[in-house]
Amino acid sequence: MKLRFYNGNILTAEDMTVRWGEVHTDGDTITYVGEEKSRSDEKFDREIDLNGNLIMPSFKNAHTHSAMVFLRSYADDMPLQDWLFKQVFPMEDKLTPEDIYIFTKLAALEYFSGGTTACFDMYFYPEYIAQAGIDTGLRTVICGSVSGGDNKADYDSALSRLEEYYNKFNGADPLISFKIGFHAEYTTHISIMKGIAELAEKYKQPVYTHNSETEKEVRECIGRHGKTPAALMEETGLLKYGGGGFHCVHFTDEDMEIFRRNGAWVITNPCSNCKLASGIAPLAEMRKKGLRLAIGTDGAASNNALDMFREMYLASVLQKILENDASAMPADAVLEMALKGSALAMGLTGCDTLAAGKKADMTVIDLNTPNMQPLHNTVKNIVFAGNKSNVIMTVSGGVIVYENGQFPTLDAEKIYADANAAVKALINR
Amino acid sequence: MKLRFYNGNILTAEDMTVRWGEVHTDGDTITYVGEEKSRSDEKFDREIDLNGNLIMPSFKNAHTHSAMVFLRSYADDMPLQDWLFKQVFPMEDKLTPEDIYIFTKLAALEYFSGGTTACFDMYFYPEYIAQAGIDTGLRTVICGSVSGGDNKADYDSALSRLEEYYNKFNGADPLISFKIGFHAEYTTHISIMKGIAELAEKYKQPVYTHNSETEKEVRECIGRHGKTPAALMEETGLLKYGGGGFHCVHFTDEDMEIFRRNGAWVITNPCSNCKLASGIAPLAEMRKKGLRLAIGTDGAASNNALDMFREMYLASVLQKILENDASAMPADAVLEMALKGSALAMGLTGCDTLAAGKKADMTVIDLNTPNMQPLHNTVKNIVFAGNKSNVIMTVSGGVIVYENGQFPTLDAEKIYADANAAVKALINR
Repeated sequence: MKLRFYNGNILTAEDMTVRWGEVHTDGDTITYVGEEKSRSDEKFDREIDLNGNLIMPSFKNAHTHSAMVFLRSYADDMPLQDWLFKQVFPMEDKLTPEDIYIFTKLAALEYFSGGTTACFDMYFYPEYIAQAGIDTGLRTVICGSVSGGDNKADYDSALSRLEEYYNKFNGADPLISFKIGFHAEYTTHISIMKGIAELAEKYKQPVYTHNSETEKEVRECIGRHGKTPAALMEETGLLKYGGGGFHCVHFTDEDMEIFRRNGAWVITNPCSNCKLASGIAPLAEMRKKGLRLAIGTDGAASNNALDMFREMYLASVLQKILENDASAMPADAVLEMALKGSALAMGLTGCDTLAAGKKADMTVIDLNTPNMQPLHNTVKNIVFAGNKSNVIMTVSGGVIVYENGQFPTLDAEKIYADANAAVKALINR
Repeated sequence: MKLRFYNGNILTAEDMTVRWGEVHTDGDTITYVGEEKSRSDEKFDREIDLNGNLIMPSFKNAHTHSAMVFLRSYADDMPLQDWLFKQVFPMEDKLTPEDIYIFTKLAALEYFSGGTTACFDMYFYPEYIAQAGIDTGLRTVICGSVSGGDNKADYDSALSRLEEYYNKFNGADPLISFKIGFHAEYTTHISIMKGIAELAEKYKQPVYTHNSETEKEVRECIGRHGKTPAALMEETGLLKYGGGGFHCVHFTDEDMEIFRRNGAWVITNPCSNCKLASGIAPLAEMRKKGLRLAIGTDGAASNNALDMFREMYLASVLQKILENDASAMPADAVLEMALKGSALAMGLTGCDTLAAGKKADMTVIDLNTPNMQPLHNTVKNIVFAGNKSNVIMTVSGGVIVYENGQFPTLDAEKIYADANAAVKALINR
């Protein structure tokens, strides 16, 4: 399938400048990004008039638990411990592999409708996450979610399964990849963390984990190990190849310096951190210190949406509150995080910008709507005034997966019906 | 025009329960809300199949400066004082009445596309605000924006104009009303505030003003008058008939008690307060203390959208952070604020709920989208997962003003073009 997008604005994300021109694709790859071309003999399967609207890289969601859409609005407005232990865990215990498949497909619809084409997904039954990604066209980087205790059986099964997944999911399908990861320090024995570090060394790979999401987590880690989660990761060798932390809300100056010197990614989740009352990550300070920053939504049980527009808005305006400075965390920095930062954080080096040879993972933003007018500054409009209703097309791997409210490659009504049926069965199980 | 909405869910906002049924309108009034009716001989101009989606009262935006859309994304990410004195004020000085008219029309499109049909608008040239409201079908409550100094000329002109507006705009058109108000303590001499209190007494009317938006404002008010803005208002008699304050970020316990005992409305603007680094209003505490709460967007120069979904989300999740409690400020309380609270705060007692005899100001929310699935809890879905893309129809005064991305009664393209031309002329003026 060869596509031509013309008569529009382009934000390549190589820089944050908007330029006029056109974009061509062939299969899953971008073949041309640049000035308008005069009429040529090149044949396309479809030529899309952008009507002055903006084409840019699609959003990459750098931390999520896609299938958790099944708990959206199931239990909110309650204290964190009740939410987790009385609502989330008992429901998760009942999940089947087939549930993961159908709920991940539902999440894919939500991603596409909001201009997102890739996610860094950490959840149960990775085979079913991968299959949902392949069947929907969602580029999925699966993050290992090892957890386990002190005994040898835990150690052996956690490590051998992690290595098995690493080898199984990398290279098997162009849409799917796998990164070494574990749930968090507080669910993983130090012997397993050390084993993961050895595996990372064997494959020269980065490691990812939840890190410093709550004060309690940091306090208890210090109690167990005499140091913060970030310091423990560095000491254990888990940051040798970069990697990253999800949340990073309660970071000390020393934690920031550790992440900086290791080139590790801070993957922020501002909506979830607010809604669960976890706190506000010091992103503006991290940015000043030169840390690498990316954005994710976390799961829909705690967010409750998978919406990168809302995530970007909060990633900026919460910093203005935190720093007591309206100039903190400007729009272009946040948009760069959501496009380029998030792609690179999850290892999608081919999906970070629009350029010939990069993957055709793109979204078209409607500028011809009341909230985008007048057009003083397109980037600020997207971050500060934009929302999902501005997404008029999403292209994943060269395939149009969303266009004007429709999902041309998927049966959305069937996915809604299947998801609701699966939820009902799960509750009654 | 008689409309019938059937085969759908209804949230009347009399309570926050969702029920199945239908809604009828005749002219600008609701004639029936209740269970499904069996086939009758009643004739409608249009029968609208809700397909299981939700009809509810439209949002009421209880604090805005509509025409400020002209500064959307013009100057962001800069310190507050630079933003105000170097960017906003010099541009506002160049506004013509015709500018106000066209920019307010642009704002009306944005309100309608997000399910909002009424606003409490405070800006220059109220005749032109009113005309834009009438011409677009936007229910507009104009708030007096008196400011002025010590001399008799200021006093006379401010007070006589305020009374003239009060009498001119109330009763002249069903879409337009006027409330007594002044910009803020920091722009208004105490003699003028006292004159406004006398006017309020004469007409037995509430008074509205910006109140305690920034720490600086409160500190300087205490310096001038020895008390906070809220205490000063009460002492001056400005709260005798209720009224309200816009923002109310830096409220003391005593300020809250003053507002509570006077039945005054706290009209919160969480997005603007974040983006300008003003702070987080203590809404959860205010709610516990029994204060009356409403929500507005403030102007698009500081927000940068006029989007009640984002406003509701922040009104809830920021409280969870502030209170360090994930159960603070639940979804149903916030939705009630945005529908019923905001309507009542601005005096629209006929537009607060769906019931026979109330105004036909309504919006239809698409539940058949990925972010609204599965359907555990519709109210939580709207507040925590909803966004403008879920608005599929907006009805203002019985007229369909927005439907599936289109504005059937307005020429949106012409409004965009006019607004951009006006901005260009203004910058070059």
